[in-house]
Amino acid sequence: MNPKVAVIMGSDSDLPIIKETTEVLDQFKIKYQLHVLSAHRTPEKTIAFAKKAYQKGIKVIIAGAGGAAHLPGIIAAFFPLPVIGLPIKSKTLNGLDSLYSIVQMPPGVPVGTVAINGAKNAALLALEILAVSDNKIKEALLSFRKKQQQTVKEKSKKLNRLGAKEYLKTKK
Amino acid sequence: MNPKVAVIMGSDSDLPIIKETTEVLDQFKIKYQLHVLSAHRTPEKTIAFAKKAYQKGIKVIIAGAGGAAHLPGIIAAFFPLPVIGLPIKSKTLNGLDSLYSIVQMPPGVPVGTVAINGAKNAALLALEILAVSDNKIKEALLSFRKKQQQTVKEKSKKLNRLGAKEYLKTKK
Amino acid sequence: MNPKVAVIMGSDSDLPIIKETTEVLDQFKIKYQLHVLSAHRTPEKTIAFAKKAYQKGIKVIIAGAGGAAHLPGIIAAFFPLPVIGLPIKSKTLNGLDSLYSIVQMPPGVPVGTVAINGAKNAALLALEILAVSDNKIKEALLSFRKKQQQTVKEKSKKLNRLGAKEYLKTKK
Amino acid sequence: MNPKVAVIMGSDSDLPIIKETTEVLDQFKIKYQLHVLSAHRTPEKTIAFAKKAYQKGIKVIIAGAGGAAHLPGIIAAFFPLPVIGLPIKSKTLNGLDSLYSIVQMPPGVPVGTVAINGAKNAALLALEILAVSDNKIKEALLSFRKKQQQTVKEKSKKLNRLGAKEYLKTKK
Amino acid sequence: MNPKVAVIMGSDSDLPIIKETTEVLDQFKIKYQLHVLSAHRTPEKTIAFAKKAYQKGIKVIIAGAGGAAHLPGIIAAFFPLPVIGLPIKSKTLNGLDSLYSIVQMPPGVPVGTVAINGAKNAALLALEILAVSDNKIKEALLSFRKKQQQTVKEKSKKLNRLGAKEYLKTKK
Amino acid sequence: MNPKVAVIMGSDSDLPIIKETTEVLDQFKIKYQLHVLSAHRTPEKTIAFAKKAYQKGIKVIIAGAGGAAHLPGIIAAFFPLPVIGLPIKSKTLNGLDSLYSIVQMPPGVPVGTVAINGAKNAALLALEILAVSDNKIKEALLSFRKKQQQTVKEKSKKLNRLGAKEYLKTKK
Amino acid sequence: MNPKVAVIMGSDSDLPIIKETTEVLDQFKIKYQLHVLSAHRTPEKTIAFAKKAYQKGIKVIIAGAGGAAHLPGIIAAFFPLPVIGLPIKSKTLNGLDSLYSIVQMPPGVPVGTVAINGAKNAALLALEILAVSDNKIKEALLSFRKKQQQTVKEKSKKLNRLGAKEYLKTKK
Amino acid sequence: MNPKVAVIMGSDSDLPIIKETTEVLDQFKIKYQLHVLSAHRTPEKTIAFAKKAYQKGIKVIIAGAGGAAHLPGIIAAFFPLPVIGLPIKSKTLNGLDSLYSIVQMPPGVPVGTVAINGAKNAALLALEILAVSDNKIKEALLSFRKKQQQTVKEKSKKLNRLGAKEYLKTKK
Repeated sequence: MNPKVAVIMGSDSDLPIIKETTEVLDQFKIKYQLHVLSAHRTPEKTIAFAKKAYQKGIKVIIAGAGGAAHLPGIIAAFFPLPVIGLPIKSKTLNGLDSLYSIVQMPPGVPVGTVAINGAKNAALLALEILAVSDNKIKEALLSFRKKQQQTVKEKSKKLNRLGAKEYLKTKK
Repeated sequence: MNPKVAVIMGSDSDLPIIKETTEVLDQFKIKYQLHVLSAHRTPEKTIAFAKKAYQKGIKVIIAGAGGAAHLPGIIAAFFPLPVIGLPIKSKTLNGLDSLYSIVQMPPGVPVGTVAINGAKNAALLALEILAVSDNKIKEALLSFRKKQQQTVKEKSKKLNRLGAKEYLKTKK
Repeated sequence: MNPKVAVIMGSDSDLPIIKETTEVLDQFKIKYQLHVLSAHRTPEKTIAFAKKAYQKGIKVIIAGAGGAAHLPGIIAAFFPLPVIGLPIKSKTLNGLDSLYSIVQMPPGVPVGTVAINGAKNAALLALEILAVSDNKIKEALLSFRKKQQQTVKEKSKKLNRLGAKEYLKTKK
Repeated sequence: MNPKVAVIMGSDSDLPIIKETTEVLDQFKIKYQLHVLSAHRTPEKTIAFAKKAYQKGIKVIIAGAGGAAHLPGIIAAFFPLPVIGLPIKSKTLNGLDSLYSIVQMPPGVPVGTVAINGAKNAALLALEILAVSDNKIKEALLSFRKKQQQTVKEKSKKLNRLGAKEYLKTKK
Repeated sequence: MNPKVAVIMGSDSDLPIIKETTEVLDQFKIKYQLHVLSAHRTPEKTIAFAKKAYQKGIKVIIAGAGGAAHLPGIIAAFFPLPVIGLPIKSKTLNGLDSLYSIVQMPPGVPVGTVAINGAKNAALLALEILAVSDNKIKEALLSFRKKQQQTVKEKSKKLNRLGAKEYLKTKK
Repeated sequence: MNPKVAVIMGSDSDLPIIKETTEVLDQFKIKYQLHVLSAHRTPEKTIAFAKKAYQKGIKVIIAGAGGAAHLPGIIAAFFPLPVIGLPIKSKTLNGLDSLYSIVQMPPGVPVGTVAINGAKNAALLALEILAVSDNKIKEALLSFRKKQQQTVKEKSKKLNRLGAKEYLKTKK
Repeated sequence: MNPKVAVIMGSDSDLPIIKETTEVLDQFKIKYQLHVLSAHRTPEKTIAFAKKAYQKGIKVIIAGAGGAAHLPGIIAAFFPLPVIGLPIKSKTLNGLDSLYSIVQMPPGVPVGTVAINGAKNAALLALEILAVSDNKIKEALLSFRKKQQQTVKEKSKKLNRLGAKEYLKTKK
Repeated sequence: MNPKVAVIMGSDSDLPIIKETTEVLDQFKIKYQLHVLSAHRTPEKTIAFAKKAYQKGIKVIIAGAGGAAHLPGIIAAFFPLPVIGLPIKSKTLNGLDSLYSIVQMPPGVPVGTVAINGAKNAALLALEILAVSDNKIKEALLSFRKKQQQTVKEKSKKLNRLGAKEYLKTKK
């Protein structure tokens, strides 16, 4: 079966963040495509990808970009299914530029935006979108949430037992 | 058939913006629930809604809120399918507070965020999510995009014909 | 006697800051509860805590959170006594997101907010609130302020004596 | 009985906002002092007030100010019980200056800050602080919250009944 | 002779600002193309334009856009000669979003950006670029600057003569 | 005697704000020069003014400007005595651009900056500078401060007498 | 032949960034002048340079500056051909001050601004401007873009082959 | 002779910046007082200082502070001669909070503000203020400016001679 998710980034310097997206997808055993596609440096290839993705069975595209960060918006202009925008923290404006460029799309062409460097949530949002029509993913998400809950509860218990000072020592 | 979409807002003062969301859904003939639910003033009812929504067949929730704007995040904490966050322009910080509160979700619980006052795109993103598994909606979206394209092209032609000055006169 | 103060945080990664809150409370010999409670990852437990806190004798809750930082607001939705919001500096927006999410609460449900990473002041504000009806705490606060004053005055004297250059050497 | 609450403002141009604070206090039948006190234009009087307030039975001070907004901080320097800072929206920076000046207090002297123009919440936070040791106010707050809840629920029902378009017509 | 300048905008709602660009070009008797081209709503047409512009003799493109404002960057990805980006003031973020999206281009593909709503300067920068190899335009620019200088000097003289109060009366 | 103060502005559109500066100077009977001088549109004249001001007996220059707001800095580059920078509120960035351009001067060439649109304070700061060596101005400033104090105190008394609601009626 | 490009900076502390500008020019074999010119510390020399540049055959000036960053604007006031403004990241405001000071020029005197620290793009924009009338530079730019495209495509292929984890290892 | 300048700071943690102020004053052989005075932690002492400073011959006060940064404003409320505000870069908001708190003073009580961490300029502005009535300081300032000019010119020459790459090597 072809992958239903594509994960793309504007530059390979975004990969250390994007890797967290792929790790979540791997953990849920979801196949995905992975590309470096620059809206500005490889515009033809980017547009060709965006046009064909839909016919090739891609259902959701996660696009990470920083600075002017046009990639998610340009993909969304050609792809009629959900595009998830992942603003990458930039060197000079802390990712504010990336966030505004991605989230402030004009009426008619939406990009569902997650937090600056919110790479895990980009994957989880993609999974939630697939879960709308896929019960197995839905169940996997529900059990992920339970486990997550458990982890926080255990931390709280440990903190209750040890107090702030001792707890912090165990984390070093 | 039960509605698959719920549109909720933190206060009825957000309704003039939220109305644009419902108009797009109406235009696509998509049924939806419509509620005022405050994360702070009616927290019990909000949580009860978030918990039951999933069992009642809701597939996507659009949540509009302004200021501290906790509504989308709280809904997402209980609802395992996609939540679309719509930041409403606020009186003192122009919606920057709404945007940050909604988009900067912690790892584990995503909210797909659209532009400040991006009410039309909230509806379109919901439709795109449903279109992943619904061909009729997908076709409707494709034809919506074509019409949209046509409108812009006609404006451009008219502008070519009239020039800036005359064009602006026709808009008054 | 049951603790009158609860100190909670959205994630144990906030603990290095929150520890300064607990140290001030320890210094004033005030008992407190200490929990990790995530508005998004453990919403049920968070709400259960918020509802019961009041019956169990908690008089003030200090809630630290970063990013979307919904914890203080959600607690305040269920807890009718003072909630002190402590915005934690975030990695991408320097805590501006935390500050706006916590302070910009809608009319009807206040959160008394302190500075970004203002962990000591969160404790002191809790003490001031208790001091309204507790003379011992009031006296302790007054003597704390005197000592604080003394410290600054001694620094000023030392600076007068040594001059800027020598003073800085003694601090290395 | 002497008032336990003082409401002060840096300039009478803040009064249209501050009036919402006094209206909430009136509604809860709480007596209060009301002064114009400028940290910069009447510094002596401001400091004299701050020093004496405590002896005269004032338990909480609500201080509203805009721009450089030093009033709450200066009051807090002299008053050992809770000071609530109310940032007033300013003409040039939308109240961001007021917010930062009030909330970013240094360690040792806290100001519990509410939203920009959050005048109602300033009063409610003062009431919550008094409610820590006053059961009558606590009960009044609980019933206020219930009424508030009721109002939102009725709006939601009305919206369900009328739909967005008709609802908005009734508000004109 | 074919026009050497193209003036494009993302939406006809930008036209009231863009008109000031065309007026400066008209004043200098420079022919130009004028189009509405949306990077998101008419992406194919936009790219087709960008690719062909160069062959058709266009030497400079002025692109105005607001919000996510991807138009100038996308044009620059296909057009190897200067692109001037004109950020249009947006409704929710005052044009900060437009400015960041346009100016923060990644290394390799520049956009020369002018002030938010700096429509006149967009035209003047285009003229300066043409003036590098066109003496007639250079002379026209020099005489424009002289006239501009004269205007300011006359205002200063009038102000000297009348004083602030009387001067302001003459402007009503 | 020649004026010791010059008041200059980058554009006559700044005059409605600058007028408040001249009114304070008039009130203190201080003579001043008044010019429109643009760092960008009349650079030669601006520099000539800056160079000669010092020889002609000018002791303080107040320079108001908006947007890129280079005027105060350029004047300071040539004038060895105090330059007061007055940032004018701009149309697109609310005067933040003006403030940063004026206040963030590099080491070596200071500009003493007042609030955005702080036209009265620009005049008062100039007077304080002259008062360092002019007892008459110092006395006038002291009595100005007393009067100012009186005004605030009277407002406070009136507010005490009337309460918020009635007070506001008297201001309409 | 005299250089057609001048690269200037406000301080030699900007040189580590500016060096990237000169490296691009070197790579394209474009001769250039290189100066430290401070609008505030060497204003006379700066203005003398700006006035003569035009007669000496300079066609484009690239001016990098940080903080108040008046250099590009002052140069533009005297130089009738294109000035490219390069905002340098500043220590306290991350280059926001530099960006606003440079881009927000008043009508009449444009500065074509590139990204904060966008030193490579400053050079490329200068080359594009020269390419308007120089076919050799135009061809060099086209082949530069092709190579740039190739690099991104190869990275994408490598990423496809290795996956995120292995790819990142090869970059250490 | 008593010092005419006082340099004060809100906390001794500001001293590494403030030291640059004292170094400039030392270099000009200007005597000064040096104190740690906290508007919040030692308010009485701060006010006592502000009131007496004037009688003791202080002509200018330089006040450095960070965060809420009320010190310069409070001093200005009591001191009728020039107060120079020096915003110190803060840990969480990069000094934006300090800047706004210091510069946005209300009409009636000005503070002449310099750049964030602009410690040298604070001293130079104080010197310029004294130079209004002190020819020796004026001459010293003029010769300081000449030397400063010389330094920049020498750097430019060296850069011309060595080129960017070699120049940077000499700075390591």
